[in-house]
Amino acid sequence: MRIDIISVLPELMESPFKASILKRAVEKGLAEVHFHQLRDWSVGKHRQVDDEPYGGGAGMVMMIEPIDKCITDLKSQRDYDEVIYLTPDGETLSQKIANTLSIKQNLIFLCGHYKGIDQRVRDLHITREISIGDYVLTGGELAACVLADAVIRLLPGVLNDEQSALTDSFQDNLLSPPIYTRPSEYKGLKVPEILMSGNTKKIEDWLHEEAVRITQEKRPDILD
Amino acid sequence: MRIDIISVLPELMESPFKASILKRAVEKGLAEVHFHQLRDWSVGKHRQVDDEPYGGGAGMVMMIEPIDKCITDLKSQRDYDEVIYLTPDGETLSQKIANTLSIKQNLIFLCGHYKGIDQRVRDLHITREISIGDYVLTGGELAACVLADAVIRLLPGVLNDEQSALTDSFQDNLLSPPIYTRPSEYKGLKVPEILMSGNTKKIEDWLHEEAVRITQEKRPDILD
Repeated sequence: MRIDIISVLPELMESPFKASILKRAVEKGLAEVHFHQLRDWSVGKHRQVDDEPYGGGAGMVMMIEPIDKCITDLKSQRDYDEVIYLTPDGETLSQKIANTLSIKQNLIFLCGHYKGIDQRVRDLHITREISIGDYVLTGGELAACVLADAVIRLLPGVLNDEQSALTDSFQDNLLSPPIYTRPSEYKGLKVPEILMSGNTKKIEDWLHEEAVRITQEKRPDILD
Repeated sequence: MRIDIISVLPELMESPFKASILKRAVEKGLAEVHFHQLRDWSVGKHRQVDDEPYGGGAGMVMMIEPIDKCITDLKSQRDYDEVIYLTPDGETLSQKIANTLSIKQNLIFLCGHYKGIDQRVRDLHITREISIGDYVLTGGELAACVLADAVIRLLPGVLNDEQSALTDSFQDNLLSPPIYTRPSEYKGLKVPEILMSGNTKKIEDWLHEEAVRITQEKRPDILD
Protein backbone atom coordinates (compact mmCIF):
# COMPACT_ATOMS: atom_id res chain seq x y z
CA MET A 1 0.00 0.00 0.00
CA ARG A 2 1.11 3.51 -0.81
CA ILE A 3 -0.30 6.57 0.95
CA ASP A 4 0.46 10.11 -0.24
CA ILE A 5 -0.35 12.75 2.35
CA ILE A 6 -0.76 16.37 1.23
CA SER A 7 -0.50 19.03 3.92
CA VAL A 8 0.79 22.49 4.78
CA LEU A 9 2.31 20.96 7.93
CA PRO A 10 3.89 17.62 7.04
CA GLU A 11 6.36 18.05 9.92
CA LEU A 12 3.46 17.66 12.35
CA MET A 13 3.11 14.04 11.20
CA GLU A 14 6.73 12.94 11.46
CA SER A 15 6.92 11.19 14.81
CA PRO A 16 3.86 8.91 14.55
CA PHE A 17 5.38 7.23 11.49
CA LYS A 18 8.78 6.83 13.17
CA ALA A 19 7.59 4.73 16.10
CA SER A 20 6.03 1.41 16.82
CA ILE A 21 3.99 -0.50 14.30
CA LEU A 22 3.80 2.18 11.61
CA LYS A 23 7.58 2.40 11.60
CA ARG A 24 7.91 -1.36 11.27
CA ALA A 25 5.31 -1.52 8.50
CA VAL A 26 7.29 1.06 6.53
CA GLU A 27 10.64 -0.64 7.24
CA LYS A 28 9.27 -4.01 6.15
CA GLY A 29 8.09 -2.41 2.90
CA LEU A 30 4.45 -3.25 3.65
CA ALA A 31 3.44 0.40 3.52
CA GLU A 32 4.93 3.43 1.81
CA VAL A 33 4.00 6.83 3.20
CA HIS A 34 4.98 9.98 1.29
CA PHE A 35 4.45 13.50 2.56
CA HIS A 36 3.88 16.41 0.20
CA GLN A 37 4.32 19.98 1.35
CA LEU A 38 1.51 21.87 -0.32
CA ARG A 39 3.62 25.04 -0.41
CA ASP A 40 5.83 23.35 -3.01
CA TRP A 41 2.83 23.75 -5.31
CA SER A 42 1.99 27.29 -4.28
CA VAL A 43 1.41 30.14 -6.66
CA GLY A 44 3.21 33.48 -6.61
CA LYS A 45 6.33 34.60 -4.85
CA HIS A 46 4.90 34.40 -1.31
CA ARG A 47 4.30 30.64 -1.56
CA GLN A 48 0.67 31.41 -0.90
CA VAL A 49 -1.67 28.44 -0.40
CA ASP A 50 -4.60 30.14 1.32
CA ASP A 51 -6.69 33.26 0.86
CA GLU A 52 -9.73 35.02 2.32
CA PRO A 53 -13.17 33.48 1.80
CA TYR A 54 -15.53 34.92 -0.79
CA GLY A 55 -18.50 36.43 0.99
CA GLY A 56 -16.48 37.30 4.09
CA GLY A 57 -16.23 35.58 7.44
CA ALA A 58 -13.42 34.48 9.75
CA GLY A 59 -10.64 32.13 8.76
CA MET A 60 -8.63 31.45 5.65
CA VAL A 61 -9.50 29.04 2.85
CA MET A 62 -7.04 26.69 1.14
CA MET A 63 -6.83 27.65 -2.54
CA ILE A 64 -7.76 25.28 -5.35
CA GLU A 65 -4.73 25.81 -7.57
CA PRO A 66 -1.88 24.38 -5.44
CA ILE A 67 -4.01 21.38 -4.42
CA ASP A 68 -5.13 20.73 -7.98
CA LYS A 69 -1.54 20.87 -9.22
CA CYS A 70 -0.26 18.54 -6.53
CA ILE A 71 -3.02 15.95 -6.99
CA THR A 72 -2.79 16.14 -10.79
CA ASP A 73 0.96 15.51 -10.59
CA LEU A 74 0.46 12.47 -8.34
CA LYS A 75 -2.28 11.09 -10.57
CA SER A 76 0.01 11.40 -13.61
CA GLN A 77 2.41 8.96 -11.90
CA ARG A 78 0.00 6.20 -10.85
CA ASP A 79 -3.66 5.35 -10.42
CA TYR A 80 -5.24 6.10 -7.07
CA ASP A 81 -8.10 4.12 -5.58
CA GLU A 82 -9.32 7.02 -3.50
CA VAL A 83 -8.52 10.71 -2.96
CA ILE A 84 -9.61 11.23 0.64
CA TYR A 85 -10.23 14.60 2.25
CA LEU A 86 -10.03 14.56 6.04
CA THR A 87 -12.77 16.87 7.26
CA PRO A 88 -15.13 17.02 10.25
CA ASP A 89 -18.14 16.95 7.91
CA GLY A 90 -17.09 13.75 6.13
CA GLU A 91 -18.50 10.28 6.79
CA THR A 92 -17.47 9.08 10.23
CA LEU A 93 -14.55 6.66 10.25
CA SER A 94 -15.47 3.18 11.46
CA GLN A 95 -13.61 -0.10 11.67
CA LYS A 96 -15.56 -1.20 8.60
CA ILE A 97 -14.24 1.73 6.56
CA ALA A 98 -10.71 0.99 7.80
CA ASN A 99 -11.13 -2.64 6.70
CA THR A 100 -12.34 -1.52 3.26
CA LEU A 101 -9.45 0.90 2.74
CA SER A 102 -6.88 -1.67 3.89
CA ILE A 103 -7.31 -3.66 0.66
CA LYS A 104 -6.60 -0.66 -1.59
CA GLN A 105 -3.30 -0.05 -3.37
CA ASN A 106 -2.81 3.71 -3.62
CA LEU A 107 -4.46 6.37 -1.53
CA ILE A 108 -4.16 10.16 -1.33
CA PHE A 109 -4.98 11.85 1.97
CA LEU A 110 -5.58 15.60 1.78
CA CYS A 111 -5.34 17.39 5.12
CA GLY A 112 -7.52 20.45 5.52
CA HIS A 113 -6.17 23.33 7.55
CA TYR A 114 -7.46 26.78 8.46
CA LYS A 115 -11.21 26.92 7.71
CA GLY A 116 -10.96 24.19 5.08
CA ILE A 117 -10.49 23.85 1.34
CA ASP A 118 -12.12 25.59 -1.60
CA GLN A 119 -15.33 23.67 -2.39
CA ARG A 120 -14.20 23.22 -6.00
CA VAL A 121 -11.37 20.90 -4.89
CA ARG A 122 -14.03 18.66 -3.38
CA ASP A 123 -16.10 18.77 -6.56
CA LEU A 124 -13.10 18.13 -8.80
CA HIS A 125 -10.85 15.60 -7.06
CA ILE A 126 -12.16 14.20 -3.81
CA THR A 127 -13.66 10.70 -4.02
CA ARG A 128 -14.26 10.22 -0.31
CA GLU A 129 -14.55 12.54 2.69
CA ILE A 130 -13.75 11.08 6.08
CA SER A 131 -14.09 12.45 9.60
CA ILE A 132 -12.42 10.68 12.52
CA GLY A 133 -15.16 11.92 14.87
CA ASP A 134 -17.58 14.70 15.83
CA TYR A 135 -15.04 17.20 17.08
CA VAL A 136 -12.86 19.86 15.52
CA LEU A 137 -9.07 19.66 15.33
CA THR A 138 -6.44 22.24 14.44
CA GLY A 139 -6.10 20.59 11.06
CA GLY A 140 -6.50 17.34 9.19
CA GLU A 141 -2.96 16.22 9.99
CA LEU A 142 -3.76 14.23 13.14
CA ALA A 143 -6.81 12.80 11.39
CA ALA A 144 -4.53 11.61 8.56
CA CYS A 145 -2.22 9.94 11.10
CA VAL A 146 -5.19 8.24 12.76
CA LEU A 147 -6.58 7.00 9.45
CA ALA A 148 -3.16 5.77 8.29
CA ASP A 149 -2.64 3.94 11.59
CA ALA A 150 -6.10 2.33 11.56
CA VAL A 151 -5.55 1.11 7.98
CA ILE A 152 -1.87 0.15 7.98
CA ARG A 153 -2.12 -2.06 11.07
CA LEU A 154 -4.62 -4.21 9.15
CA LEU A 155 -2.21 -4.96 6.28
CA PRO A 156 -1.15 -8.61 6.19
CA GLY A 157 2.17 -9.05 7.98
CA VAL A 158 2.10 -5.79 9.95
CA LEU A 159 0.82 -7.25 13.20
CA ASN A 160 2.20 -10.55 14.42
CA ASP A 161 -0.04 -13.30 15.82
CA GLU A 162 0.45 -11.98 19.32
CA GLN A 163 -1.04 -8.65 18.29
CA SER A 164 -3.72 -10.19 16.11
CA ALA A 165 -6.27 -7.63 15.01
CA LEU A 166 -9.00 -10.26 14.93
CA THR A 167 -9.74 -10.02 18.64
CA ASP A 168 -9.89 -6.20 18.62
CA SER A 169 -12.87 -4.23 19.81
CA PHE A 170 -15.42 -3.69 16.98
CA GLN A 171 -14.21 -6.54 14.74
CA ASP A 172 -16.99 -8.77 16.13
CA ASN A 173 -19.37 -5.99 17.22
CA LEU A 174 -18.34 -6.55 20.83
CA LEU A 175 -16.13 -4.50 23.10
CA SER A 176 -13.25 -6.31 24.79
CA PRO A 177 -13.79 -8.15 28.07
CA PRO A 178 -11.77 -7.01 31.10
CA ILE A 179 -8.15 -8.16 31.05
CA TYR A 180 -5.72 -8.82 33.87
CA THR A 181 -2.07 -9.72 34.27
CA ARG A 182 0.38 -10.36 37.12
CA PRO A 183 0.40 -9.90 40.05
CA SER A 184 -2.77 -11.78 41.00
CA GLU A 185 -3.24 -9.44 43.95
CA TYR A 186 -2.16 -5.80 44.16
CA LYS A 187 -3.07 -3.51 47.04
CA GLY A 188 -5.96 -5.82 47.88
CA LEU A 189 -7.29 -5.83 44.32
CA LYS A 190 -7.62 -9.41 43.05
CA VAL A 191 -7.85 -11.00 39.63
CA PRO A 192 -11.18 -12.86 39.18
CA GLU A 193 -10.59 -16.47 40.26
CA ILE A 194 -12.07 -17.99 37.14
CA LEU A 195 -9.22 -16.56 35.02
CA MET A 196 -6.72 -18.51 37.12
CA SER A 197 -8.76 -21.72 37.14
CA GLY A 198 -7.08 -23.29 34.12
CA ASN A 199 -10.51 -24.34 32.80
CA THR A 200 -10.27 -23.11 29.22
CA LYS A 201 -13.92 -23.66 28.35
CA LYS A 202 -15.21 -21.84 31.42
CA ILE A 203 -12.75 -19.00 30.87
CA GLU A 204 -13.84 -18.57 27.25
CA ASP A 205 -17.48 -18.52 28.26
CA TRP A 206 -16.80 -15.97 30.99
CA LEU A 207 -14.81 -13.70 28.64
CA HIS A 208 -17.61 -13.81 26.08
CA GLU A 209 -20.27 -13.10 28.72
CA GLU A 210 -18.25 -10.17 30.04
CA ALA A 211 -17.75 -8.79 26.51
CA VAL A 212 -21.51 -8.96 25.93
CA ARG A 213 -22.27 -7.43 29.35
CA ILE A 214 -19.83 -4.56 28.84
CA THR A 215 -21.10 -3.88 25.32
CA GLN A 216 -24.72 -3.86 26.55
CA GLU A 217 -23.74 -1.49 29.33
CA LYS A 218 -21.53 0.93 27.40
CA ARG A 219 -22.46 0.64 23.74
CA PRO A 220 -25.81 -1.10 23.14
CA ASP A 221 -25.86 0.67 19.76
CA ILE A 222 -23.12 -1.54 18.27
CA LEU A 223 -24.68 -4.89 19.29
CA ASP A 224 -26.21 -6.81 16.41
CA MET B 1 -4.08 23.91 31.70
CA ARG B 2 -1.65 21.13 32.41
CA ILE B 3 -1.81 17.74 30.68
CA ASP B 4 0.33 14.80 31.81
CA ILE B 5 0.49 12.03 29.23
CA ILE B 6 1.60 8.55 30.33
CA SER B 7 2.75 6.18 27.60
CA VAL B 8 5.25 3.49 26.64
CA LEU B 9 5.89 5.47 23.43
CA PRO B 10 6.07 9.17 24.28
CA GLU B 11 8.37 9.72 21.29
CA LEU B 12 5.43 8.91 19.00
CA MET B 13 3.74 12.11 20.22
CA GLU B 14 6.62 14.54 19.77
CA SER B 15 5.95 16.20 16.44
CA PRO B 16 2.25 17.09 16.87
CA PHE B 17 3.14 19.25 19.87
CA LYS B 18 6.01 20.94 18.03
CA ALA B 19 3.95 22.38 15.21
CA SER B 20 1.19 24.83 14.57
CA ILE B 21 -1.33 25.81 17.21
CA LEU B 22 -0.31 23.29 19.88
CA LYS B 23 3.25 24.58 19.70
CA ARG B 24 2.09 28.15 20.05
CA ALA B 25 -0.22 27.32 22.97
CA VAL B 26 2.72 25.74 24.80
CA GLU B 27 5.09 28.61 23.95
CA LYS B 28 2.56 31.17 25.14
CA GLY B 29 2.25 29.28 28.42
CA LEU B 30 -1.46 28.61 27.85
CA ALA B 31 -0.94 24.85 28.01
CA GLU B 32 1.71 22.67 29.60
CA VAL B 33 2.12 19.17 28.23
CA HIS B 34 4.35 16.68 30.05
CA PHE B 35 5.19 13.23 28.77
CA HIS B 36 5.91 10.36 31.13
CA GLN B 37 7.68 7.24 29.91
CA LEU B 38 5.93 4.41 31.72
CA ARG B 39 9.12 2.32 31.68
CA ASP B 40 10.61 4.77 34.19
CA TRP B 41 8.12 3.24 36.63
CA SER B 42 8.69 -0.35 35.61
CA VAL B 43 9.39 -3.18 38.00
CA GLY B 44 12.36 -5.54 37.81
CA LYS B 45 15.58 -5.34 35.88
CA HIS B 46 14.02 -5.74 32.44
CA ARG B 47 12.00 -2.52 32.75
CA GLN B 48 8.92 -4.69 32.28
CA VAL B 49 5.59 -2.89 31.90
CA ASP B 50 3.48 -5.63 30.31
CA ASP B 51 2.81 -9.30 30.87
CA GLU B 52 0.64 -12.13 29.55
CA PRO B 53 -3.10 -12.06 30.24
CA TYR B 54 -4.56 -14.29 32.93
CA GLY B 55 -6.79 -16.88 31.31
CA GLY B 56 -4.73 -16.91 28.10
CA GLY B 57 -5.37 -15.26 24.76
CA ALA B 58 -3.35 -13.19 22.32
CA GLY B 59 -1.64 -9.92 23.19
CA MET B 60 0.10 -8.46 26.21
CA VAL B 61 -1.52 -6.55 29.05
CA MET B 62 -0.10 -3.42 30.66
CA MET B 63 0.64 -4.16 34.33
CA ILE B 64 -1.00 -2.30 37.18
CA GLU B 65 2.11 -1.58 39.26
CA PRO B 66 4.05 0.83 36.97
CA ILE B 67 0.88 2.74 36.10
CA ASP B 68 -0.24 2.94 39.74
CA LYS B 69 3.17 4.23 40.78
CA CYS B 70 3.30 6.86 38.05
CA ILE B 71 -0.23 8.15 38.67
CA THR B 72 0.24 8.10 42.46
CA ASP B 73 3.41 10.16 42.07
CA LEU B 74 1.66 12.72 39.87
CA LYS B 75 -1.29 12.93 42.26
CA SER B 76 1.09 13.60 45.17
CA GLN B 77 2.25 16.76 43.38
CA ARG B 78 -1.10 18.32 42.47
CA ASP B 79 -4.82 17.67 42.23
CA TYR B 80 -6.14 16.32 38.96
CA ASP B 81 -9.62 17.01 37.63
CA GLU B 82 -9.70 13.84 35.57
CA VAL B 83 -7.55 10.76 34.95
CA ILE B 84 -8.52 9.80 31.42
CA TYR B 85 -7.84 6.44 29.82
CA LEU B 86 -7.86 6.53 26.02
CA THR B 87 -9.53 3.30 24.91
CA PRO B 88 -11.77 2.20 22.03
CA ASP B 89 -14.45 1.10 24.53
CA GLY B 90 -14.66 4.47 26.29
CA GLU B 91 -17.35 7.09 25.72
CA THR B 92 -17.06 8.56 22.25
CA LEU B 93 -15.33 11.94 22.09
CA SER B 94 -17.60 14.77 20.98
CA GLN B 95 -17.19 18.53 20.71
CA LYS B 96 -19.26 18.80 23.89
CA ILE B 97 -16.79 16.65 25.83
CA ALA B 98 -13.90 18.69 24.42
CA ASN B 99 -15.67 21.88 25.57
CA THR B 100 -16.16 20.42 29.06
CA LEU B 101 -12.53 19.33 29.40
CA SER B 102 -11.24 22.69 28.15
CA ILE B 103 -12.27 24.38 31.42
CA LYS B 104 -10.32 21.92 33.61
CA GLN B 105 -6.97 22.70 35.21
CA ASN B 106 -5.02 19.44 35.42
CA LEU B 107 -5.59 16.31 33.37
CA ILE B 108 -3.84 12.96 33.12
CA PHE B 109 -4.09 11.03 29.85
CA LEU B 110 -3.15 7.35 30.04
CA CYS B 111 -2.39 5.77 26.67
CA GLY B 112 -3.21 2.09 26.36
CA HIS B 113 -0.94 -0.05 24.23
CA TYR B 114 -0.80 -3.75 23.38
CA LYS B 115 -4.15 -5.35 24.30
CA GLY B 116 -4.89 -2.70 26.95
CA ILE B 117 -4.39 -2.16 30.66
CA ASP B 118 -5.07 -4.37 33.67
CA GLN B 119 -8.72 -3.85 34.62
CA ARG B 120 -7.71 -2.94 38.17
CA VAL B 121 -6.06 0.28 36.94
CA ARG B 122 -9.45 1.28 35.57
CA ASP B 123 -11.16 0.40 38.86
CA LEU B 124 -8.54 2.21 40.96
CA HIS B 125 -7.56 5.38 39.13
CA ILE B 126 -9.47 6.13 35.96
CA THR B 127 -12.22 8.75 36.28
CA ARG B 128 -13.15 8.90 32.61
CA GLU B 129 -12.63 6.62 29.60
CA ILE B 130 -12.65 8.24 26.19
CA SER B 131 -12.59 6.83 22.68
CA ILE B 132 -11.90 9.06 19.69
CA GLY B 133 -14.04 6.81 17.47
CA ASP B 134 -15.21 3.30 16.60
CA TYR B 135 -11.97 1.98 15.19
CA VAL B 136 -8.84 0.42 16.61
CA LEU B 137 -5.44 2.09 16.63
CA THR B 138 -1.96 0.77 17.36
CA GLY B 139 -2.14 2.45 20.74
CA GLY B 140 -3.68 5.31 22.66
CA GLU B 141 -0.93 7.74 21.69
CA LEU B 142 -2.58 9.21 18.61
CA ALA B 143 -5.86 9.35 20.53
CA ALA B 144 -4.10 11.36 23.24
CA CYS B 145 -2.76 13.78 20.61
CA VAL B 146 -6.23 14.16 19.12
CA LEU B 147 -7.84 14.79 22.51
CA ALA B 148 -5.13 17.28 23.50
CA ASP B 149 -5.52 19.13 20.20
CA ALA B 150 -9.33 19.25 20.43
CA VAL B 151 -9.13 20.62 23.99
CA ILE B 152 -6.13 22.96 23.81
CA ARG B 153 -7.38 24.85 20.75
CA LEU B 154 -10.43 25.87 22.82
CA LEU B 155 -8.38 27.53 25.58
CA PRO B 156 -8.83 31.31 25.65
CA GLY B 157 -6.03 33.00 23.71
CA VAL B 158 -4.93 29.96 21.72
CA LEU B 159 -6.84 30.78 18.55
CA ASN B 160 -6.94 34.35 17.33
CA ASP B 161 -10.14 35.97 16.07
CA GLU B 162 -9.35 34.94 12.54
CA GLN B 163 -9.36 31.31 13.59
CA SER B 164 -12.29 31.67 15.95
CA ALA B 165 -13.59 28.32 17.13
CA LEU B 166 -17.12 29.66 17.39
CA THR B 167 -17.88 29.10 13.71
CA ASP B 168 -16.53 25.53 13.70
CA SER B 169 -18.55 22.55 12.64
CA PHE B 170 -20.54 21.06 15.55
CA GLN B 171 -20.45 24.18 17.77
CA ASP B 172 -23.94 25.10 16.56
CA ASN B 173 -25.09 21.59 15.55
CA LEU B 174 -24.53 22.48 11.91
CA LEU B 175 -21.82 21.46 9.50
CA SER B 176 -19.97 24.23 7.70
CA PRO B 177 -21.35 25.68 4.46
CA PRO B 178 -19.20 25.40 1.31
CA ILE B 179 -16.32 27.89 1.21
CA TYR B 180 -14.49 29.44 -1.72
CA THR B 181 -11.51 31.68 -2.30
CA ARG B 182 -9.65 33.22 -5.22
CA PRO B 183 -9.60 32.79 -8.18
CA SER B 184 -13.28 33.26 -8.93
CA GLU B 185 -12.94 30.90 -11.88
CA TYR B 186 -10.53 28.00 -12.20
CA LYS B 187 -10.61 25.50 -15.07
CA GLY B 188 -14.22 26.49 -15.74
CA LEU B 189 -15.27 26.00 -12.11
CA LYS B 190 -16.92 29.15 -10.79
CA VAL B 191 -17.58 30.55 -7.34
CA PRO B 192 -21.35 30.96 -6.70
CA GLU B 193 -22.28 34.50 -7.75
CA ILE B 194 -24.06 35.34 -4.55
CA LEU B 195 -20.78 35.17 -2.60
CA MET B 196 -19.37 37.91 -4.81
CA SER B 197 -22.52 40.07 -4.68
CA GLY B 198 -21.43 42.17 -1.71
CA ASN B 199 -24.93 41.80 -0.21
CA THR B 200 -24.04 40.80 3.35
CA LYS B 201 -27.56 39.89 4.41
CA LYS B 202 -28.18 37.69 1.37
CA ILE B 203 -24.79 36.05 1.77
CA GLU B 204 -25.43 35.25 5.42
CA ASP B 205 -28.81 33.76 4.59
CA TRP B 206 -27.31 31.67 1.81
CA LEU B 207 -24.49 30.38 4.02
CA HIS B 208 -26.98 29.39 6.71
CA GLU B 209 -29.27 27.68 4.20
CA GLU B 210 -26.34 25.78 2.75
CA ALA B 211 -25.16 24.72 6.23
CA VAL B 212 -28.65 23.40 7.00
CA ARG B 213 -28.91 21.67 3.62
CA ILE B 214 -25.52 20.00 3.96
CA THR B 215 -26.25 18.91 7.51
CA GLN B 216 -29.61 17.45 6.47
CA GLU B 217 -27.94 15.64 3.61
CA LYS B 218 -24.86 14.31 5.41
CA ARG B 219 -25.63 14.23 9.12
CA PRO B 220 -29.35 14.52 9.89
CA ASP B 221 -28.53 12.91 13.27
CA ILE B 222 -26.82 16.02 14.64
CA LEU B 223 -29.62 18.48 13.74
CA ASP B 224 -31.61 19.69 16.74
